[in-house]
Amino acid sequence: MLVLGVDPGSHVTGYGLVEKKNNQLICIHSGQVTSSAKIPFYDRIHKIFKAMAEIMERYRPGEMSIEDVFYAKNIQSSLKLGHARGAVLIAAVQCGVRIFEYTPLEIKKSVVGYGRATKEQVNSMVRIILNLKTTPKLDTSDALAAAICHINTSRFKSLTKE
Amino acid sequence: MLVLGVDPGSHVTGYGLVEKKNNQLICIHSGQVTSSAKIPFYDRIHKIFKAMAEIMERYRPGEMSIEDVFYAKNIQSSLKLGHARGAVLIAAVQCGVRIFEYTPLEIKKSVVGYGRATKEQVNSMVRIILNLKTTPKLDTSDALAAAICHINTSRFKSLTKE
Repeated sequence: MLVLGVDPGSHVTGYGLVEKKNNQLICIHSGQVTSSAKIPFYDRIHKIFKAMAEIMERYRPGEMSIEDVFYAKNIQSSLKLGHARGAVLIAAVQCGVRIFEYTPLEIKKSVVGYGRATKEQVNSMVRIILNLKTTPKLDTSDALAAAICHINTSRFKSLTKE
Repeated sequence: MLVLGVDPGSHVTGYGLVEKKNNQLICIHSGQVTSSAKIPFYDRIHKIFKAMAEIMERYRPGEMSIEDVFYAKNIQSSLKLGHARGAVLIAAVQCGVRIFEYTPLEIKKSVVGYGRATKEQVNSMVRIILNLKTTPKLDTSDALAAAICHINTSRFKSLTKE
């Protein structure tokens, strides 16, 4: 089953599609939805919704893995993050993609083996696990890490009856 | 021109459609999108998006007026509010409804004449201004107040060339 991992943000939303084949995790496609701070905020949020819906329609992942956010730097950044995360969730429900949420701790632990790993450590491990030729950007590796975390959990295993 | 005012929230999203006819403000329709805390959060957010898009498709407002949020009680509530507000903005962009944002101070000042008015004071004034026969719920009157504020501003007046 193809799993879409997403790391939402109002400036950059990272995404990555990961599949398990012959016990090997493969990155099918990954990238970022970026938008200029010059365009109105509501257009940026709509762009995230539209881009994510297009990716879901094109690749038809069965499931989406996304970080369950409990905190942000401050009220302002949590408001903005909420808008962006909402856009991703709406696209998933709209496209019939099942949503699974994991805490940052669960994702880091699943990928690096350590819940307080840095973004750079996550990046290095994602590159090794997926055997990537180039180093992904940090938001993309966070998204891929969410997908890897989901594939490695019992919730995914029970669904795919491994 | 028909103006849609919205007061977004993850539990209750109030909305109200207001039109100016013969120098009188008329409430065409108003209500609330509510969702049980028992259904998954992402389904609640999608419900807001779907319901608001349906209202916009049915009534075809030219413009939407929504509170510009700068703060919330805490990080958790601002994250949730961000999701709900994002759902409303995406529906508006999707339906081609122009978005106008006003601070709570601007809205209260426009309706009550006092920027620090309570929700109850806003409710009473909205009922008087729109000549409503019944008392609207507080989230609905906040939404109607946003619509009234927009119609009373120079931004609206310059568009409709009054």
